[in-house]
Amino acid sequence: MKSLFAADIQDNQLVDSMFLVATKTHGVTKTGNSYLTLKLIDKSGEIEARVWERAEDLGRGFDKNDFVRVRGQATLYQGRMQLRVQDVMRIDGSRVSPDDFLPKSAFEPAIMLEELQTILRGMKNPFLLALAEGFFADDELIDLLSQAPGAKTIHHPYLSGLLEHTLSLLKLILRVVDNYSGIDTDLLLMGGFLHDIGKVYEFTFDRAVDYTDAGQLLGHLVMEVEMVTKKIDAIPEFPPELALLLKHLLVSHHGAYEFGSPKLPQTVEAVILHSLDDLDGKIQAIQNMPEKAPGSKWTAFHRAYGRSFFRATRTKPESETES
Amino acid sequence: MKSLFAADIQDNQLVDSMFLVATKTHGVTKTGNSYLTLKLIDKSGEIEARVWERAEDLGRGFDKNDFVRVRGQATLYQGRMQLRVQDVMRIDGSRVSPDDFLPKSAFEPAIMLEELQTILRGMKNPFLLALAEGFFADDELIDLLSQAPGAKTIHHPYLSGLLEHTLSLLKLILRVVDNYSGIDTDLLLMGGFLHDIGKVYEFTFDRAVDYTDAGQLLGHLVMEVEMVTKKIDAIPEFPPELALLLKHLLVSHHGAYEFGSPKLPQTVEAVILHSLDDLDGKIQAIQNMPEKAPGSKWTAFHRAYGRSFFRATRTKPESETES
Amino acid sequence: MKSLFAADIQDNQLVDSMFLVATKTHGVTKTGNSYLTLKLIDKSGEIEARVWERAEDLGRGFDKNDFVRVRGQATLYQGRMQLRVQDVMRIDGSRVSPDDFLPKSAFEPAIMLEELQTILRGMKNPFLLALAEGFFADDELIDLLSQAPGAKTIHHPYLSGLLEHTLSLLKLILRVVDNYSGIDTDLLLMGGFLHDIGKVYEFTFDRAVDYTDAGQLLGHLVMEVEMVTKKIDAIPEFPPELALLLKHLLVSHHGAYEFGSPKLPQTVEAVILHSLDDLDGKIQAIQNMPEKAPGSKWTAFHRAYGRSFFRATRTKPESETES
Amino acid sequence: MKSLFAADIQDNQLVDSMFLVATKTHGVTKTGNSYLTLKLIDKSGEIEARVWERAEDLGRGFDKNDFVRVRGQATLYQGRMQLRVQDVMRIDGSRVSPDDFLPKSAFEPAIMLEELQTILRGMKNPFLLALAEGFFADDELIDLLSQAPGAKTIHHPYLSGLLEHTLSLLKLILRVVDNYSGIDTDLLLMGGFLHDIGKVYEFTFDRAVDYTDAGQLLGHLVMEVEMVTKKIDAIPEFPPELALLLKHLLVSHHGAYEFGSPKLPQTVEAVILHSLDDLDGKIQAIQNMPEKAPGSKWTAFHRAYGRSFFRATRTKPESETES
Amino acid sequence: MKSLFAADIQDNQLVDSMFLVATKTHGVTKTGNSYLTLKLIDKSGEIEARVWERAEDLGRGFDKNDFVRVRGQATLYQGRMQLRVQDVMRIDGSRVSPDDFLPKSAFEPAIMLEELQTILRGMKNPFLLALAEGFFADDELIDLLSQAPGAKTIHHPYLSGLLEHTLSLLKLILRVVDNYSGIDTDLLLMGGFLHDIGKVYEFTFDRAVDYTDAGQLLGHLVMEVEMVTKKIDAIPEFPPELALLLKHLLVSHHGAYEFGSPKLPQTVEAVILHSLDDLDGKIQAIQNMPEKAPGSKWTAFHRAYGRSFFRATRTKPESETES
Amino acid sequence: MKSLFAADIQDNQLVDSMFLVATKTHGVTKTGNSYLTLKLIDKSGEIEARVWERAEDLGRGFDKNDFVRVRGQATLYQGRMQLRVQDVMRIDGSRVSPDDFLPKSAFEPAIMLEELQTILRGMKNPFLLALAEGFFADDELIDLLSQAPGAKTIHHPYLSGLLEHTLSLLKLILRVVDNYSGIDTDLLLMGGFLHDIGKVYEFTFDRAVDYTDAGQLLGHLVMEVEMVTKKIDAIPEFPPELALLLKHLLVSHHGAYEFGSPKLPQTVEAVILHSLDDLDGKIQAIQNMPEKAPGSKWTAFHRAYGRSFFRATRTKPESETES
Repeated sequence: MKSLFAADIQDNQLVDSMFLVATKTHGVTKTGNSYLTLKLIDKSGEIEARVWERAEDLGRGFDKNDFVRVRGQATLYQGRMQLRVQDVMRIDGSRVSPDDFLPKSAFEPAIMLEELQTILRGMKNPFLLALAEGFFADDELIDLLSQAPGAKTIHHPYLSGLLEHTLSLLKLILRVVDNYSGIDTDLLLMGGFLHDIGKVYEFTFDRAVDYTDAGQLLGHLVMEVEMVTKKIDAIPEFPPELALLLKHLLVSHHGAYEFGSPKLPQTVEAVILHSLDDLDGKIQAIQNMPEKAPGSKWTAFHRAYGRSFFRATRTKPESETES
Repeated sequence: MKSLFAADIQDNQLVDSMFLVATKTHGVTKTGNSYLTLKLIDKSGEIEARVWERAEDLGRGFDKNDFVRVRGQATLYQGRMQLRVQDVMRIDGSRVSPDDFLPKSAFEPAIMLEELQTILRGMKNPFLLALAEGFFADDELIDLLSQAPGAKTIHHPYLSGLLEHTLSLLKLILRVVDNYSGIDTDLLLMGGFLHDIGKVYEFTFDRAVDYTDAGQLLGHLVMEVEMVTKKIDAIPEFPPELALLLKHLLVSHHGAYEFGSPKLPQTVEAVILHSLDDLDGKIQAIQNMPEKAPGSKWTAFHRAYGRSFFRATRTKPESETES
Repeated sequence: MKSLFAADIQDNQLVDSMFLVATKTHGVTKTGNSYLTLKLIDKSGEIEARVWERAEDLGRGFDKNDFVRVRGQATLYQGRMQLRVQDVMRIDGSRVSPDDFLPKSAFEPAIMLEELQTILRGMKNPFLLALAEGFFADDELIDLLSQAPGAKTIHHPYLSGLLEHTLSLLKLILRVVDNYSGIDTDLLLMGGFLHDIGKVYEFTFDRAVDYTDAGQLLGHLVMEVEMVTKKIDAIPEFPPELALLLKHLLVSHHGAYEFGSPKLPQTVEAVILHSLDDLDGKIQAIQNMPEKAPGSKWTAFHRAYGRSFFRATRTKPESETES
Repeated sequence: MKSLFAADIQDNQLVDSMFLVATKTHGVTKTGNSYLTLKLIDKSGEIEARVWERAEDLGRGFDKNDFVRVRGQATLYQGRMQLRVQDVMRIDGSRVSPDDFLPKSAFEPAIMLEELQTILRGMKNPFLLALAEGFFADDELIDLLSQAPGAKTIHHPYLSGLLEHTLSLLKLILRVVDNYSGIDTDLLLMGGFLHDIGKVYEFTFDRAVDYTDAGQLLGHLVMEVEMVTKKIDAIPEFPPELALLLKHLLVSHHGAYEFGSPKLPQTVEAVILHSLDDLDGKIQAIQNMPEKAPGSKWTAFHRAYGRSFFRATRTKPESETES
Repeated sequence: MKSLFAADIQDNQLVDSMFLVATKTHGVTKTGNSYLTLKLIDKSGEIEARVWERAEDLGRGFDKNDFVRVRGQATLYQGRMQLRVQDVMRIDGSRVSPDDFLPKSAFEPAIMLEELQTILRGMKNPFLLALAEGFFADDELIDLLSQAPGAKTIHHPYLSGLLEHTLSLLKLILRVVDNYSGIDTDLLLMGGFLHDIGKVYEFTFDRAVDYTDAGQLLGHLVMEVEMVTKKIDAIPEFPPELALLLKHLLVSHHGAYEFGSPKLPQTVEAVILHSLDDLDGKIQAIQNMPEKAPGSKWTAFHRAYGRSFFRATRTKPESETES
Repeated sequence: MKSLFAADIQDNQLVDSMFLVATKTHGVTKTGNSYLTLKLIDKSGEIEARVWERAEDLGRGFDKNDFVRVRGQATLYQGRMQLRVQDVMRIDGSRVSPDDFLPKSAFEPAIMLEELQTILRGMKNPFLLALAEGFFADDELIDLLSQAPGAKTIHHPYLSGLLEHTLSLLKLILRVVDNYSGIDTDLLLMGGFLHDIGKVYEFTFDRAVDYTDAGQLLGHLVMEVEMVTKKIDAIPEFPPELALLLKHLLVSHHGAYEFGSPKLPQTVEAVILHSLDDLDGKIQAIQNMPEKAPGSKWTAFHRAYGRSFFRATRTKPESETES
C-alpha cells in the first residue's frame, strides 16, 4: 500500500512515492536545454510533474506506462498542484500493488461475491445449481472475477466493476421477474451471472485496462460460451435444451448485430437479460460521469451513448455516499 | 351482451347473433351465380360464413366493417366450423356493445384503475400529486383510459390494454428504483403514468383499433405534452424545471429518433422509462404471440421485432391462467 | 430409388409413385363438394395434382410435408402436366430415400471428399494436419458433411452443396495465395475447411432444408468454434495462438456485424477467407438462378443479394455441362 | 457601441477597448514565470493577446467567456496583429451591448419584420390572419424574433438570422406555390412563419449562441407546438382541422426521423415546407462558408452537410455586396 | 385511335375493341371445364373479362402483354362492369397506337416543347445556348423526349411525363433563383433540361414502361453524361470548367449515394437542382395518388416515399381541372 | 536526384539538401524572440528542423508545401535526429524531381507495364484486343498510368501504385477464373485493366497526392466511362452489348451505392471484379500498415476499414523483401 496518494499531496510537501507514468513529453528551451513534463497517476487521481534538472539522464531510465519512484517538492501553481522532481527512477511492476494504481469499486469484492453466491444458491434447478457450484469451485476464475473491471470505458470501468455490475444485475433480475409470470427465473439468473464472465480473459487489468489478443479476436461472448461448455461437460445428464437456452442468453445479450451479438434475443429470458444488462450499465455510467463544467447540470459527452446527460438534482448515488 | 359468440358455436347449431364483418368477398360459379364468403368476428374469435342464396340481394345491404345480424346453420367442414347463412342484415353500431366485438384485457379496468391510483397517490412530491389528481378528476379522460387499447398491433392490442400496460409499468418502476439510489421515483412514476396517455386520442377503438387523423399527423408523444401542459397550467406555482423534466420523459420515451422520439433520453429517469416501457411491451407481446404451427415451440414471426421467439416450456402467463 | 420422377411423367401416363406433399389446399364447389389441390414434389421438380373423388376422406390421411404414395392419371392441361388422383396415402419417412426428394449436387460426394482430403493433407503445419485428421476420423461428421446442403436458400441449397462449396473454396484459396507473399496458407485452408462445418448441425435436411433449434439460437459460427475446440483438446501441445487465429477465422467469416459475425476480420487471412467465401457463393448463386422469364437474359430477383443478374451469353457452368 | 473593433486595430496602436475572452491559456517559462495567451473576440473578428507582466495576478480576475476591458499595445508579429497587454479586467455583462460581440445579419431587423408582416397580412384565411396578429401583438416574442440567430452553427448562425431566414423562406414559398395548383398558400405561409419560432426559447444568445435546458430537452419543434396552441386558444372557433394541419407542419418540418421530426411530412404543404426550409438554409450556408484556403474555389468542410463545396465564380451573395 | 375505351363501356353494351392483356389466369370448374379470367387495359383504365366458352382454344392464341381484339357483351356485376367474351384474338403491336394504351400527360407535348425551348433560348451564356440548340436539332432525341414517361412508377409515370416534369422544373428554377443572388441561372436551367434526358434511352415505353438493358446496367445519370459530352464535342471552345459543372449537376442530381448518385451535390446549383427536382416529383405524385378508400382524405400507401398522404381539401390540381 | 535523403542523415553531419516543407510552426520565447519548427520530408521519410537564428527573416521566404534548400547541422536529440538550420530558402518546383519527394512502388514501372501488356495481349476477343491496343498507343495516358498512385490514402498510396495494383489484379483474375466455367475472362481482364484508369486524371501527384476538381466533382468511375467511350468510337463495329458490359464493370466496381457506384454489380463478371479489386487493395493495405507501437502485433488503426489488424508472424511481403 502506498503511503501517499496524488490526491492527498499538499502545497510545499516533500514527496517520495510510487506512481504510474501516464504521459511523458520532452520540451526544449531556447538555450537548447531539455526538460520533461510528466503526468503521474495512481488510483486517487493525477498530478503534473516537471523535471528541470538532468532531464535527459533521468528521462532515459523510464518510459510511459512504467511504474516509477519519484522524489521532489510540491508547489501550488495556477491553482493546481505541481511536482518539481529531484529524482525519478523506474521500479519493477511486481513491487507494486495494482490496487494502488487502478480505481476500484466502492464495494468490497468479498462481500459482493458472497451476496452473489447466496442469490445463485437460491436457485431450484439442480443442473443450474451444479453449474454455479462448478464455477464457484474454480479458484482462478473466482479470483479474476473479483478483480476484473466491467469494461474499458463504457460502464463500471474500474477494478471489481464486473462483479459489482453482475451482482446489481442479479438483484435487478430478482425484482423484475416478480412482476411477470411464465419466466424461467433460474435460467435468467444463471444468464445474468455468466453474461460477461468471459471478460475476465477479454481484458488485462494489471496496470491499466486493455484488451487481450483473444479478447480482441474472439470477444467475451464466444469465450464464455466455451467456458460454460467446459463446465457443463463435467455435469452428468445436463439437459441439452437447458444448455442451449443458457448459451443463447450469452450469445444474444448485446441485443443487436451491430453490438456484436451473432444472434438476436429469441426467448423472453434473452430479451429481459439484454434489457436489464443494458439498463444497469447505463444507470451506473450516467450517475458517475464527470460534469461538463464545474457546477453544470450537464455531464460531459458520453461517446458510446452519443449524448450528454442532464442531472436535475445531483443526488450522489449509493456507491459514493458510502465511502 | 351477445347471447352467442363465434368460439362457442357447435356443429348443427342454429345461429342468430350479431357479428362484425371482417371480410366480404364475392365468388361466381360457372353458371354465373354469385355467392358470398364472409369472415365474421366478435371478441371470441372468428367464423367463416357462406351465402349461397340471394347473395346479390343480401350483399347489397351491408359492407365490410359493418355490424350485422346473421341467421343460419353451422356445420363442421374440413375440421372447421362454417356458417351457411339464410339471412344477414346490417344493424346500427349504436345498438351493439363494443365489448362484444373487440378483445379485451383479462383484468377488470376498475380494479386496475384503483391500483394505479393507489400507487400514484403514494408519491411525495406535492406538485406531481396535484397533477395526478388533476388527471383523475378528468372523467372523460379516465373513461377513455379505462377502455383504450395499448396499440394497434405491436403489444397490448386489446381493450384496456393501455391501462394494463401502464399499471404493469408502474409496478415495474417501483421494483427497479429500489435497486438504485439517486433516482427521482415520483418523477419516474408520473412519467410512467403519462407516457402513453395521448393514445386515448391517437386511436379510435369503437369497433376496430385505428388511428385518428390527429394520431397520424401529430402522434401521442406531442399530443400528451399538450395534455400535460393544460393540466399543469391549473396548478399554482408548478416548478418550471419539474414540468420540463416530465415533458422530457414523454418526448423521449421511444428511445431513438427512428421510433419517433424527437429527443433522445437525456436524464437517468428518461433512460429508465424508455427501457422499462420497451421491456414490458416486449414481454407481453412474446408471451401472447400465436404459435408458428400447432405444437411448435416457435411463435409466428413478429413483424415489428423482426423475428420469431422460442418458448421452451409454454408456461401460460398470469393473465391467461387467471381467467 | 423411385421408379418415376415428376419431371418424367408423360401425358396420359398411369402414375404410381412416391412424392413429398409441398402444399395441400381445399377447395369447395357450389354444391358443397370439396376437392383437393396438391403440389407434389421430388428432386426432379413438381407436379400439380387434383383429388376430385373422396377428397375429404383421402385428405384426412395425410398433411403437408408428408411423404405419400399417389396413384392416378396424368393429363396435359393448359400446357402443364396435371395428375388426376385416384388414391393417395401417407407413407413413413423411413421408407423413402432422401436422395429422391431433395435436389443434390452434380458432383459425387465421395470424389469431392477425397479431393478435399488430398488438399488438406498437403498442409505443412503438423498441428493443423493433426486437426484435419481429427475431423476426417469422425465418421458421423464426415457422413453429415457429405450430405449437408450449403444453405437453405442463398447459395448451394442442395444436398452435398456444403461439400461442393467447401471444396471449391479450398481450390480457390490455393490459387489466390500464390498471388501474394506473407500469407499463412495452411491456416487459411483450415479456415476454409471449417468455416461452415457447423452447418451440419445448423440444418436438418432429411426431407426439406430447415433450421434446427440450436442452429436458430446459436448459429453455425458459434457451433463450429465449439466443435473445433473439442478436436483441438485431443491434440497435445496445440499452440494457443494458432487455435486463436483459427477460431478468429470462424467467428469473423461473415465479414460484418449485420451478417452475424461477432467480430470483424482482423487478420489478412480472415479478410481473404471472408472475401473468397462470399465470392464463391455468389458465383454459384448467379450461375444457377432461374431466368426471370423464358429466354430472358435477366435472372429472377435474388432476395438476399437484392437484385436480378444479367447473363449476356448463357454459358452453362461446369456443373451443368458435365451431367 | 465599442469605439475600436478587433478587425480595425493597426500596428503600434494603443488599444483600450472591450472584448469577450474566447480562450485563456497559461504558459510557463524555464524560470518558472507564468504568462497568459488570450484569444479576444468581438463581432468583427479576433486578436491574439499576451500578458507577460503580472500574469498570475491579472489572470485571477477573469475567466473564459467573461467580458474584459483591455489596455495594451498592438504589434505586427509574423504577419498577424498581436496585443501586448498592460492591463486587463473583467467588466459586467450588463455594461456591454450584445451587438458588439455577436455577428449579426446584414439586414435591418425592423425592415425585415415589416416585410414579413406585410406578407402575412396578405393571407385570406381569417383564422390564420387572426393567429398571425396574435403573434405580432406579443411584444416579448417579436422582440426575441428580431434578435435570435438561425442556428448555433449550421446556417444563419448570427443575430437576426432567424428573422432573415424566415423572411427569405416566406418569399420563396410565395414564388413556388405559383408553379402549382391545389396548394393551401395561407397554411404554408403560416407554417413558414412559425416553423422555427420555438428557437427564440431554444437558444440563449446574449454573448454566444447556446442551447437552453428546455431547448436541449424538448427542442424547438415541441416548444413551438405549445406556443401555437396557446395563441390558438385565444381565437374563438378556430377550426380544429386547421390547427391540426398547422401543427403537423411544425412537427414534421425537419423531414425525417433522424433529424428529430417525430412525424414525416404527410401533406403536400408539409413536404413543400420541409423542402424549401432545407434549401434556403443550405444556400445561405454554402454562400457564406469560408474558403478552404485563401484563393481556393473549395470551401472549408461543412460538418453537418458532410462535404466541401465548389464555387466556380465567387459571386458575392446579396447580403455581402450591400454592406 | 380506338373507338371504345374501357372506361366508357356501358351495361349490356356489345363490345368490339382492342385491349392490352394485363393478366390472364386459368380457372377450372368441378366438372373439369376450364375458363379464363382476364384483366384488359387501355389508357382509360381496365375491365375484367371472363371467357366461359372455348376457353382452352382461345387461351392458346394469346398471352399476357399481348394486344387483343375482343368481342363480347358487358354486364354490370357486383357494381363493376364485366365483359363476357365471345371471341378474343391476338393482334400485332404494329397495328395499335401506343397512345391508346398508355396513360399520357394532360398537356400537349408540342406546346410543352415550345415553352421549354422558349425558356432555354432566353439563356445568356453562348456556350449553353449552343448546347441547347445542339439538342433541339437532334430530331430523334426530341421526338423521344416528347413521348417518354417520367418514371416507371414513382412520379410522372405516363407518356410525355418526362417533358411535363422537365418543363415544370425549369419554371420552378426561374422562380426560385430570383430569391437569391450569386446563382448561375443558365447553368441551372441547362442542368434542369438535361438532368433526366438519359431516361429516353433508359426506358422502353411502346406498350408498358420498362427498363432497357442499358438503363438497368448504366442508368440515366451515366448515359446522359455521355450524351452531353458528344454534343459538347461539336461546339468549338466550350469551356472545360463549364462542361465539368454541367456534368456534375447530372451525376449528383439524385442527391445521395443511396439513390444512385456517384457524387453528392457540391455546388450551390447542384444542391438547388436536386432539391427542386425532388420537390416537383413529390408534388405531382402526392396530388395524383389514388385514395386509400373511396371518400378518404388519406391516399393509398406510396411505396417509394414510405407513407400515405393526407389531403385536407381535395382541390384538383391544374392538370385535372383543365381536361 | 537528391544527394542526401532524410533517412540517411547522421549525427553531426553537415547537411545541404532539398526537402518539401510538410509543417511550419512559429514559437516564441519569453524574451520575445521567435523561432521556427519545421517538418522536412522527402520520399525516404522526415526530419525535424529548428531555425533559431533570423527566424522571422528566413520564415518570410517560404511556406508549407514549398520545396526548400536547407543548410545546417544534424544532432541526435532525445534519440531522434534533429536539424539546426543555418539557412533555408525556397526553390522552384520545376527544379526538383518528383521521384525524390513521393514514395514509390518497390517495382519498376516499365517492367510492370510490360507484364500487364503481355497479359492483355493474350486476350482472344478481337474487339477487346483492339481496345487494349488503343489505350497502349496513347502515350500520355500510358505515361500517367506508369506514375499515378493507387489512392490518396486507402491502399497503394505511392507513385506507380495504380499500375502495381492493376497488374496484381489482372494476375489474380487469371488465377480465379480458372476455378469456374462460364466466365468471360477477356471481359473481366479488360474491366480489371480499366477499372481505375480514370484515377490518372482524378489525382494530381506532382508533390503530394491530391484530388483534381474533376476528380472531386465527377469521380474516376464516370471519367473512365468517357475515356473508354472515346477509344471504342475509334474501333469499327465494336459490339454495343460488349461496350455496355464493359462500362457496367466500371460503374459498378465499387460494389455498393455508399461507395459511389451508381449501379450494383449485376453480372457475374462485375461481381468478381468488385470482389477481387477490394481484396487486392485490402491485402496490400494490411501488409503495409505501420505497427500500432514498436514490436506490437497490432497495426495502427485503419480509418477506412475501421479497425486495426493483427499480424501473427510479421512475414515481410514480397515487395519489401526484394528491395
